[in-house]
Amino acid sequence: MAQINENYSKLQGGYLFPEIGRRVREFQEKNPHADIVRMGIGDVTRPLTPSVISAFHAGVDEMSKAETFKGYGPEQGYDFLREAIALNDYHKRGADIDPDEIFVSDGSKCDTGNILEIFGHQNRIAVQDPVYPVYVDTSVMAGRTNEYKGNGYYDGLVYMPCTAENGFIPEIPKDKVDIVFLCYPNNPTGTTASKQELKKWVDYAVRNKVVILYDSAYEAYISDPGTPHSIYEIEGARDVAIEFRSFSKTAGFTGTRCAYTVIPKSLVAYTSDGLKKPLHPVWLRRQTTKFNGVSYPVQKAAAAIYTPEGKKEVESTISYYMNNASILRENLGMMGFRVFGGINAPYVWVNSGRGIKSWDLFDKLLNEAHVVGTPGSGFGPSGEGYFRFSAFASHENVLKAIERLKNLNWDN
Amino acid sequence: MAQINENYSKLQGGYLFPEIGRRVREFQEKNPHADIVRMGIGDVTRPLTPSVISAFHAGVDEMSKAETFKGYGPEQGYDFLREAIALNDYHKRGADIDPDEIFVSDGSKCDTGNILEIFGHQNRIAVQDPVYPVYVDTSVMAGRTNEYKGNGYYDGLVYMPCTAENGFIPEIPKDKVDIVFLCYPNNPTGTTASKQELKKWVDYAVRNKVVILYDSAYEAYISDPGTPHSIYEIEGARDVAIEFRSFSKTAGFTGTRCAYTVIPKSLVAYTSDGLKKPLHPVWLRRQTTKFNGVSYPVQKAAAAIYTPEGKKEVESTISYYMNNASILRENLGMMGFRVFGGINAPYVWVNSGRGIKSWDLFDKLLNEAHVVGTPGSGFGPSGEGYFRFSAFASHENVLKAIERLKNLNWDN
Repeated sequence: MAQINENYSKLQGGYLFPEIGRRVREFQEKNPHADIVRMGIGDVTRPLTPSVISAFHAGVDEMSKAETFKGYGPEQGYDFLREAIALNDYHKRGADIDPDEIFVSDGSKCDTGNILEIFGHQNRIAVQDPVYPVYVDTSVMAGRTNEYKGNGYYDGLVYMPCTAENGFIPEIPKDKVDIVFLCYPNNPTGTTASKQELKKWVDYAVRNKVVILYDSAYEAYISDPGTPHSIYEIEGARDVAIEFRSFSKTAGFTGTRCAYTVIPKSLVAYTSDGLKKPLHPVWLRRQTTKFNGVSYPVQKAAAAIYTPEGKKEVESTISYYMNNASILRENLGMMGFRVFGGINAPYVWVNSGRGIKSWDLFDKLLNEAHVVGTPGSGFGPSGEGYFRFSAFASHENVLKAIERLKNLNWDN
Repeated sequence: MAQINENYSKLQGGYLFPEIGRRVREFQEKNPHADIVRMGIGDVTRPLTPSVISAFHAGVDEMSKAETFKGYGPEQGYDFLREAIALNDYHKRGADIDPDEIFVSDGSKCDTGNILEIFGHQNRIAVQDPVYPVYVDTSVMAGRTNEYKGNGYYDGLVYMPCTAENGFIPEIPKDKVDIVFLCYPNNPTGTTASKQELKKWVDYAVRNKVVILYDSAYEAYISDPGTPHSIYEIEGARDVAIEFRSFSKTAGFTGTRCAYTVIPKSLVAYTSDGLKKPLHPVWLRRQTTKFNGVSYPVQKAAAAIYTPEGKKEVESTISYYMNNASILRENLGMMGFRVFGGINAPYVWVNSGRGIKSWDLFDKLLNEAHVVGTPGSGFGPSGEGYFRFSAFASHENVLKAIERLKNLNWDN
């Protein structure tokens, strides 16, 4: 008798973004002429840039001729891309990461979920609260938690509240923890961690043999020169951290699919007998056995962002979105919202200041202003009362949303 | 203390294909001028066809303009592709599969590995022997086996020998089994299963509440009109089988990456209390949480193979490879090999008839003829003495390989 994975039955409701999609579809069906401004799902709207498009076409052309056709590629990614990543994203920032420590993949969502496979079931996992829901849901699905406790938390996971009071930087957990997910620039709060703050985490991980799973999918949006883009800018991080990066938000690849994960060769975990074991060969084995690499033309397209023209284009797209973020910040602030993020990240995290719950605000904005955001409580109990606006909409739509929000009636 | 997944330490040696790659590289370094003919890894060599290339370019062009740009797509794949698959690959063969039972993915290797996630840990898994190594290795990595027994088998897995004696169709297992991997047209033996034979398996699965994981990645190579392309051509299969399909071998997508998995809505597994649960929503949750869909231009490219021109082009590429297969069959037979497969599959499975072990034959062919095949024992103990030739080489290389094999000295 084939048995189902019963851990799935512990999961609460739908995954946040499908639930948003469902409510928006329902509203749209009832109001077919409503012009909805979507700032909910963190999805980009600007097209791929000319350098990327041109490299993408060239890659496709290579696939059309037997002499240049590419079959199975290296599961870890082509050297041309891994070398460009190592040079531009690490060496140029003083972080010592080699090309063969970089694993190109089809997405950071996949990697942050799949990474748990290389760790034992006994590990206790800590997450920030609010948190990108994938870390929690994949932990539940993989049986790394107990039942849902009914208060927004799963038993067995350690939640680290991130609130305005602690500057959205969690305290080091008092409970015993083995694996910590950290995300900076943070999704959903749009806040960052300084070198000193990250150093505290790296030192803690070294002392306690903890592995940090560091998601820096939004690093390209950092504008402050002192803010670290990579955890490997911190001394000691090579021995305790895995880093996840994506071309999705950096270069508009949400529908094109390319990302990468860094596993330094000096990073270790332990057997139940306490023996040190490097994780790099384990992930390599996982990827070569269960993954077949990213589409060749997509890898060519991704590499184009490291050319001089590609870099300029990426900067210009990011400026476009960050201009949206600053319009959102300024106007929401004037409307009486408490506003966070949006300076080094494409997310503006707001509290209505009017005591409204997150999903109620979601429904109010959808019904009255036809504006979609993301309810903060969808990211965890500490997000209750907060709301995330994504700066990835078009400039025109951001202006439209602001106008409508200004006209909201807060008395009903 | 972060603990490693110790199941990885049970794995024996490298994954088969990287090991072949290693030996070939080593040989090539010592013999830089050797003109090696590669028929080892089952990788295609013909370029993408004109319809596919043209749709691929059109998809890239859509990504270049804000009006047609695609961000995150549906994780399960775009409707245009799922509908083309349902119509052409299922309805036209009398198999009742709906578009929303089809999950587009980036590879069948990924899916056949990841699928175990939706089943409980208690399930006992059966595999054919010889077998595509991914089913075994991913079972080991996921902790579904005990230790390696030293004789080519892992304790806890049920192996079903497929030999010339049973026509490469395994017996129904006598041991209690919950999940069965079946692959037809078979990799590595190149043999097929008739409707009657598959019916026997479906009936067994229905009677015993077993789930069949059916890999039909090579169905496009079937030339006999009576041989089933899909397990869903068999009555009752919708309730007990998952099917894996790929564009890799059908349309040369090994480096382009697109595949799909079918989970009928009527397919069930059971809770530990014996309650029936549908698997479709579980895989949907898995995919929406841990996967972000296939690159949009790649899905456009894949859909092109269902156009009238695309179909003709695919047929022509397949004929090209099957002509190679028939040359291999005929000539290897004349050289005294016992020859199987190669009629409904791009693999020719041979026994040297000279009592040579598989890896010894591998080394002999590499060193003396500069021809790379795949040692049968790499697929499991019942493959010992066998050798797999892939028909995916270029026509010229197949002829070259045949010439060299004819001149082999079998006396040393």
